[in-house]
Order: sequence, then C-alpha cells, then structure tokens
Amino acid sequence: MSARLLGVLGGLGPMSTFYFCELVTAHTRAACDADHIDMLVSSRASTPDRTAYILGRPGARDPLPVMREEARRLAAAGADLIVIPCNTAHYFYDGLAADCPVPILNIIRETVAFLQKRGVRRCGLLATEGTVASGAYARLCAVAGLECLTPDPAGQAVVSAAIYGAVKQNRPADAAALGRVAQDLLDRGCECLVLGCTELSLLRRSGLNQPWFVDALEVLACRTILTCGREPVGFPPAFDCLRGEATV
Amino acid sequence: MSARLLGVLGGLGPMSTFYFCELVTAHTRAACDADHIDMLVSSRASTPDRTAYILGRPGARDPLPVMREEARRLAAAGADLIVIPCNTAHYFYDGLAADCPVPILNIIRETVAFLQKRGVRRCGLLATEGTVASGAYARLCAVAGLECLTPDPAGQAVVSAAIYGAVKQNRPADAAALGRVAQDLLDRGCECLVLGCTELSLLRRSGLNQPWFVDALEVLACRTILTCGREPVGFPPAFDCLRGEATV
Repeated sequence: MSARLLGVLGGLGPMSTFYFCELVTAHTRAACDADHIDMLVSSRASTPDRTAYILGRPGARDPLPVMREEARRLAAAGADLIVIPCNTAHYFYDGLAADCPVPILNIIRETVAFLQKRGVRRCGLLATEGTVASGAYARLCAVAGLECLTPDPAGQAVVSAAIYGAVKQNRPADAAALGRVAQDLLDRGCECLVLGCTELSLLRRSGLNQPWFVDALEVLACRTILTCGREPVGFPPAFDCLRGEATV
Repeated sequence: MSARLLGVLGGLGPMSTFYFCELVTAHTRAACDADHIDMLVSSRASTPDRTAYILGRPGARDPLPVMREEARRLAAAGADLIVIPCNTAHYFYDGLAADCPVPILNIIRETVAFLQKRGVRRCGLLATEGTVASGAYARLCAVAGLECLTPDPAGQAVVSAAIYGAVKQNRPADAAALGRVAQDLLDRGCECLVLGCTELSLLRRSGLNQPWFVDALEVLACRTILTCGREPVGFPPAFDCLRGEATV
C-alpha cells in the first residue's frame, strides 16, 4: 500500500505529536511542499491519562473510547493509514485496531523488529510505568528472542519524573540522573537502550542522543515515510534495514 | 468565545505548520497533557503553490478550492476556531472566510494590530513575492497609519531564495545575505522587521532572532492561546499588549 492521507492519532502528549510530524517532514526527500505527505493530525490533549488507567489509579478514566472516536474521525476524513506517536497508548492497540477501518502502524512492533534485524540480544527500556507494567515491549521482545531489561524502582522513578514532572510541564529534565539510569542498564549488559516514551524522544534535542539510544519515535517516523511511499533521508545508516515490506 | 477544538489549516508548508503547533504547545501554561488545547491539524502539503498562483505563473493552479475543502473538513470535524499558519495563504482569506462556518484568525491583521499597539510607525516586511505582491500587509498597515517597506528587487530575491531554495528543501539558508537585507531595511528607518513568512519563522531557531524581528507566527500563536481561553507563558513582555478582546 502507499497511503494518500496519513492520520496521526495524537495529543498523547501534544509536544511529541508535533515533534513526530516534524521528524516525518524533516526526513522526507522533498524539493517543494507538495512532495511531503498529506497528514491529518488529531491532537486530543484531553484524552484521559494512559498510565494512570493502566496502573489502576483511583479515579482514572479509560482512554480507549476517546482514542476510538479519534481513529474513526481520522478514517472518516479520508486517512488510509494511522500512526500513534505514543508508546504507552499501544497498551490499547488491539482494542483500537479491532475497531478501526484502516491499518495502524504499531510503534512497539516496529521497534522490536528493528532491534531484531540489528542483531540485538539484550536491550534496556526507558518508558512510562504504564508501558513497563503493560509488558508490551517485554512480550514482543521475547517472541523475537530478545531480552528486555527495565530500570530498578529508583531508576524508574527518575524516568517517570523526567516524563511527568519535566517534559509534560515544559520544564528541564534531570539529564545527569537519567544518564545514571542509562549507565546502570548498560552495565547490566544491554547493547542498546530503547527510548520507549515519546516524551523521552523530545529530550534527544537537548540530550539522550548518545549512540546506544534507539528512539522508537524515529523508527516509527522512518517506517511511516516508507509506508507512505516516500524516500526517507537523513536517518542513521542503521535505519537502512527498515526498508522492505511494511508490517501493517 | 473560548474555542474547544482548534482547527489548523496547514501544510503551507508542512514544517512551519508543526512548528506553529509546537509554539502553541510550548507557550500554553500546562501541568499535564490535558491542560493543552485540543487541535485538529490538516497538513495538506499537496495544496497548489500560493505564490505561483498569486503571481500568475504559467500552469499555476488556484489553491482556494483545496483550502475551502480543508476548512470545511475541519469545521465538520468540530473545530470552532481556525488558524492558518501561513502568511501568503491570507491572500485567499476573504474568499475562505466567506464560505467558512467558524471564525478564522487572520495572521496579518493580528500582526499589524500588534505593531500599532506597540507604537511602530515604519516597519519592514520579509515575505514571499506572493505576499508582497498581494499588498496585504501594506494595505492593513496603511489603515493603521503605519508605513510598510519591502526589500529592493535584489533583496527580495535573497528572501525568496531562503524560503523556496532553502527552508522548503530542508537546506540551510544564507544567513549572512538575509542579514544584509535586514540591515538595509533598518538603514531605511524601519523600527522593526516583520517575519511575514512562516518559513522565515523557522529560521528563528538558528538565526533571525535579533530583537528587531517581529515574528508573525509567534503573534498568531499568542493570539491563538488567548482566543482558546488559555494562559500564554514565555513570550517576550512586549506580547502582553496582545491580551484583551479577540478580533475574530
């Protein structure tokens, strides 16, 4: 397939949604506006918090009905491929895809496939508590024959603070503390560390850009460009393995 | 009014569309995702080139029908306020607004109102040939009692090359040449220089950030946040004059 209108189910959070759209735009070979991918972006910032619901926090509302409504809205408006630039939201992927008339690229599936193609045997995961608790990365990694390690509780608290206490509030994150969490995972034998939360992807603009990080959002951006029948440019050479058949 | 869903009629070009969305997000007071503005962004990159049509270039197609369709699509999906993060496209504003069931913020009107409130008497305009030829800024400036100067033909060629030859092609612009065009306008008595093309707004991340530049896109972002009933944060103190009644 080659999508004519890309639907972006976003707002989870809003800044990483637009950063994803910028990544797609910056990495699409283009000589003029019209060479770019037509997109319809639904940034529904008011979607109930995904991690709060997954962890069963008191009063947390189920975000799936809102996400379903947005996916239907995008498809009704003509989108023939949907992407969700949020790892945590993929906890709801099956419930969403079952109800959606157009294919949805899966950021976790694409990222694990990338790690497998690169021959990774043990990776670390930096993500929300919701993504970690859901086991989405661990399950797909196991299927692919990869081990997936997560930070210890103190390390996870540092990651969660960066996501919820810093990025989502437009405040600077504690880069040094995040660096120590990353180093601990590397010391435990991880060959690479997955940035499995799009708020952490945002930190690549000001840090977290060392070569051992694999940004799931960049993998999704590259796969999106390819699935829309365009030529990706400016990604690291390692991304060449993403060319080939789409998995949707 | 306080908009519940902001419609962004974009893709003109795509990168500045998402940069505008990032500006709105970065400058909205928020403690969590749900504090942000819900947005629906139509990035219709394939819209026929606006400048080519305004200048009557051979074979140029009228972009208005596509823009009308996008505005209707946004309104049908629930948008109750529309913004167009592109100065040149405002040549079509009247034709678009006449046909649109929801109000559309006008980037040129908002920017000229800002200049007037700031007591500016003579400004320079850096924009596409289409925007310059349309006289949109000059007309509204005249109504507001402001003089609006544009670069000489050689200077305009430098500006056009930065927009079409550099930014729209993901290539670096000739910052030194743009600086000379700016200096020439300052030498001719301009108190400030309007970045009246959203592709030039993108250059503020790597230049064109001197205090004499007034970025129309930032003015639009601030007015958008206010019109959506949110609290703008992190703009320069001069932007405080934008608070008050919306002009839509």
